[in-house]
Amino acid sequence: MTVTSQIAHFGQLRLDSGATLSQVDCAYETYGELNADKSNAILIEHAFSGDAHAAGMSDDGKPGWWDNMIGPGKGFDTNRYFVICSNVLGGCRGTTGPGSPDPASAKPYGMSFPVITVGDMVRLQKMLVDSLGIRKLLAVAGGSMGGMQVLEWVAAYPDAVGGALPIASTWRHSAQQIAFNEVGRQAIMADPDWADGAYYGKSRPARGLSVARMVGHITYMSDHSMRDKFGRRLRDKNEFGFDFGVDFEVESYLRYRGSQFVERFDANSYLYITKAMDYFDVTAGRTSSLAAVFENVDTRFLVMSFTSDWLYPTYQSLELVKALRSRNRDVAFVELESNYGHDAFLVEVDEQRELIKGFLASTAKGIAR
Amino acid sequence: MTVTSQIAHFGQLRLDSGATLSQVDCAYETYGELNADKSNAILIEHAFSGDAHAAGMSDDGKPGWWDNMIGPGKGFDTNRYFVICSNVLGGCRGTTGPGSPDPASAKPYGMSFPVITVGDMVRLQKMLVDSLGIRKLLAVAGGSMGGMQVLEWVAAYPDAVGGALPIASTWRHSAQQIAFNEVGRQAIMADPDWADGAYYGKSRPARGLSVARMVGHITYMSDHSMRDKFGRRLRDKNEFGFDFGVDFEVESYLRYRGSQFVERFDANSYLYITKAMDYFDVTAGRTSSLAAVFENVDTRFLVMSFTSDWLYPTYQSLELVKALRSRNRDVAFVELESNYGHDAFLVEVDEQRELIKGFLASTAKGIAR
Repeated sequence: MTVTSQIAHFGQLRLDSGATLSQVDCAYETYGELNADKSNAILIEHAFSGDAHAAGMSDDGKPGWWDNMIGPGKGFDTNRYFVICSNVLGGCRGTTGPGSPDPASAKPYGMSFPVITVGDMVRLQKMLVDSLGIRKLLAVAGGSMGGMQVLEWVAAYPDAVGGALPIASTWRHSAQQIAFNEVGRQAIMADPDWADGAYYGKSRPARGLSVARMVGHITYMSDHSMRDKFGRRLRDKNEFGFDFGVDFEVESYLRYRGSQFVERFDANSYLYITKAMDYFDVTAGRTSSLAAVFENVDTRFLVMSFTSDWLYPTYQSLELVKALRSRNRDVAFVELESNYGHDAFLVEVDEQRELIKGFLASTAKGIAR
Repeated sequence: MTVTSQIAHFGQLRLDSGATLSQVDCAYETYGELNADKSNAILIEHAFSGDAHAAGMSDDGKPGWWDNMIGPGKGFDTNRYFVICSNVLGGCRGTTGPGSPDPASAKPYGMSFPVITVGDMVRLQKMLVDSLGIRKLLAVAGGSMGGMQVLEWVAAYPDAVGGALPIASTWRHSAQQIAFNEVGRQAIMADPDWADGAYYGKSRPARGLSVARMVGHITYMSDHSMRDKFGRRLRDKNEFGFDFGVDFEVESYLRYRGSQFVERFDANSYLYITKAMDYFDVTAGRTSSLAAVFENVDTRFLVMSFTSDWLYPTYQSLELVKALRSRNRDVAFVELESNYGHDAFLVEVDEQRELIKGFLASTAKGIAR
């Protein structure tokens, strides 16, 4: 598999807020090879804490976050398709975000970074795709926040997307989804080390970010998967400690995941990206109904959700499916059985693989015709 | 309705941890009048953040937390029954807890307060009930953590409980329930103002406690009730603020609830009481199966759960019912339809009232017979 890892540099990016970024970097990786008529490109959209490294091994030996799904013979088969994945705007893994230097001052933006939207993320991705000379993507695919970007692509650039695969996602963030994000933001901003976002080069708000991540992890799992994985098992002890150290395995797991996250993620990016998710409503500024968004859209859809995903429950996918069908659009919907909760979209490989393979093959045929 | 509000003083209380408290206060209220043979007493158990003020109006005009259910003609009819409610051990509303003075030093215990269990809470309540000359309670009732105390009462003092009403509760805390509590504890302990619990007389860990409470509030509601109550409505604005102030109603609500909680609750009590809940497993130290707990128990049961309660889901109540039935015990189970999530046990009055009235009347008849 041919793998490239690059950073594209762009000039002005106009944002939904009215602000403008004068220059923007976009980190991206590609897997496989673009064919002669540039008709085999698939854009993969990462979830909240993901990055451009979706497949293959990084220099330090880490597999991509969707490596089980992208590669030779896999769901997104790099023997046939040219797969692109970029880090989102506002991120902290190579693409411009609040931790990047503001060209005006050469210091990190911090909270002077403008608030961004999923629309802004996708606008930057369109510049990237244009720069690669690709007029129409064979497909755009992603889970969770990745699925929101998929929908935004279809709504903003309907002629540029052959097939859309929003997985374990929603067409607009619900009150509960906003609430969980808000708790994470408040945990970060409550940490004195956050210092109004001006912590670069100093102590980072590790405690607040860690708490935020712990909340996140609970929402990514299910009651069932937590019961299977941890139950009430104690951690390295046979009896309760009767103190506030770690008693249960689940406590140990959450603390570990929290502290690990702090090593790889920027707290300000947490604030900006969750805000973009909360603002997301694919109808906003466009139409009064979800169905109307798809009035002039020829994109084919494969919508997937998972039974135990309570963070992005199936009913949200079904609202999307209903809207698409009300405009007689080509949409397949599958709810997959899984106990893994929201994490299922990253874990449940087998069924997704076959569904995705078939969908991509038939979409490619339709585009070639 | 005759209302009393008192504090009972006790000597030594032996704890499950092996530690001993040399003296303990127990704040309690009573409603109605104890009959001559002391057979009409009902003990009400409060949930995590509740207190002894369950019914009537406090001096500052606040209704009790279950005032819609306790009073003349209500579910717990004070014309017929003598209702008792005490603040739990470890609390911060009159009963001894980490914010109380340690008799040895006259300074607040802080983290030198011993870690307590639901068993310890109930042991103190038994001392209170004994001190009132009541040999057998007509019933013990409570929701959430209150339900855990109900089960503990039956397991520890089977002859002292006529009827048991565990509502929206569990016989042992699950990994997910522990996880949410752990996040709250970590949020508090991450606040520098927590100062290892020695913050009395200084700045309290308001930010950490507020974040902990915000997480709690999300778990008390349901996706459905949050959608109904807030949806994506903006707070005092027509357009997004594109900043990190309040955009959505749900954010405003959570922040308000968080800041309000700080006024009335002690952060260390948060730590100790959640730990007691996490330790709770009514079989622990008793039997190898739940059914075996009820081997020699004559208590009648009315078990209730609510359809949209995802924090204490129905399956946990059904496990209890199954165990009781496997020993041929007298148990009725009702799952009530509600969109209010875990809060339903405080909100859904009408159906609960009739169920509770009937159950208490038939229990009283059985005891009189």
